[in-house]
Amino acid sequence: MRRKTYSGMACPIAQTLDVVGDPWTLLIVRDALSGITRFADFQARLEIPRNTLTDRLKLLTDHGILDRRRYQDHPPRYDYHLTSKGRDLRTVIVGLLQWGDQYAGFDEPPVVLVDGHTGQQLDPLLIDRNTGRPLNELNPKPIVTRAGRPDRTDDP
Amino acid sequence: MRRKTYSGMACPIAQTLDVVGDPWTLLIVRDALSGITRFADFQARLEIPRNTLTDRLKLLTDHGILDRRRYQDHPPRYDYHLTSKGRDLRTVIVGLLQWGDQYAGFDEPPVVLVDGHTGQQLDPLLIDRNTGRPLNELNPKPIVTRAGRPDRTDDP
Repeated sequence: MRRKTYSGMACPIAQTLDVVGDPWTLLIVRDALSGITRFADFQARLEIPRNTLTDRLKLLTDHGILDRRRYQDHPPRYDYHLTSKGRDLRTVIVGLLQWGDQYAGFDEPPVVLVDGHTGQQLDPLLIDRNTGRPLNELNPKPIVTRAGRPDRTDDP
Repeated sequence: MRRKTYSGMACPIAQTLDVVGDPWTLLIVRDALSGITRFADFQARLEIPRNTLTDRLKLLTDHGILDRRRYQDHPPRYDYHLTSKGRDLRTVIVGLLQWGDQYAGFDEPPVVLVDGHTGQQLDPLLIDRNTGRPLNELNPKPIVTRAGRPDRTDDP
């Protein structure tokens, strides 16, 4: 399904991309965050081929990102709900959303992020928890630690 | 190079994935954030085929994410530097890093994020700028606005 596996890399970024490093997969997570749960609704919003959607929903379920639940018995029908592991992809989705807002040339944002409880629009900001400073002021760098160099010394 | 274009979708997330929705592309951005600038260094760290690396560096340069600079005249040689547009992908990279740290089963983090100026380790947290509250407490939902529904009503 994917061209290459990145899971041999001792890098959490590569490992994550090995699971969700496909645009359809992240677009399904986006729609699941919006509250979509049913196959037909994912398909209508994404205009995704049925077999591709089936494949990606299985991948996401196998990885514990979506929870497949039976919501009807006769005939049996299932829907898909984000788990906490799935909701923890929110930072990736927010990052994609903000970058697209800034650089894709929309006059006004076609998608906004709201508080799921109150409906208030959110303005996400990535900070350093220790100092409270925005990360964009800190020139953050990913650095390989000793744990990242068990056998291979230069593959972060 | 990619199977499908997502740029027809009036969604900044889809638009971003249309540019960087390929694992190699994001792994190059990861390495560029670490300070890598030269072809041979990207290649050694990524173990990526030369033609794939050439292709992705061109894509990133064409999109203004990397700036290609001549650093030697005889023979001419070029290196690649992140632009501010490129550095603005940091939230995506941080999101991938944190998710992998939490779920890929590493005993200790193989990659950490440090302040590029001081070297202090960072602990990134996504908050709502208006209230200061962490986004993981707010059940954030991407919602399609009117700007996202010009012709197609259900394709966020």
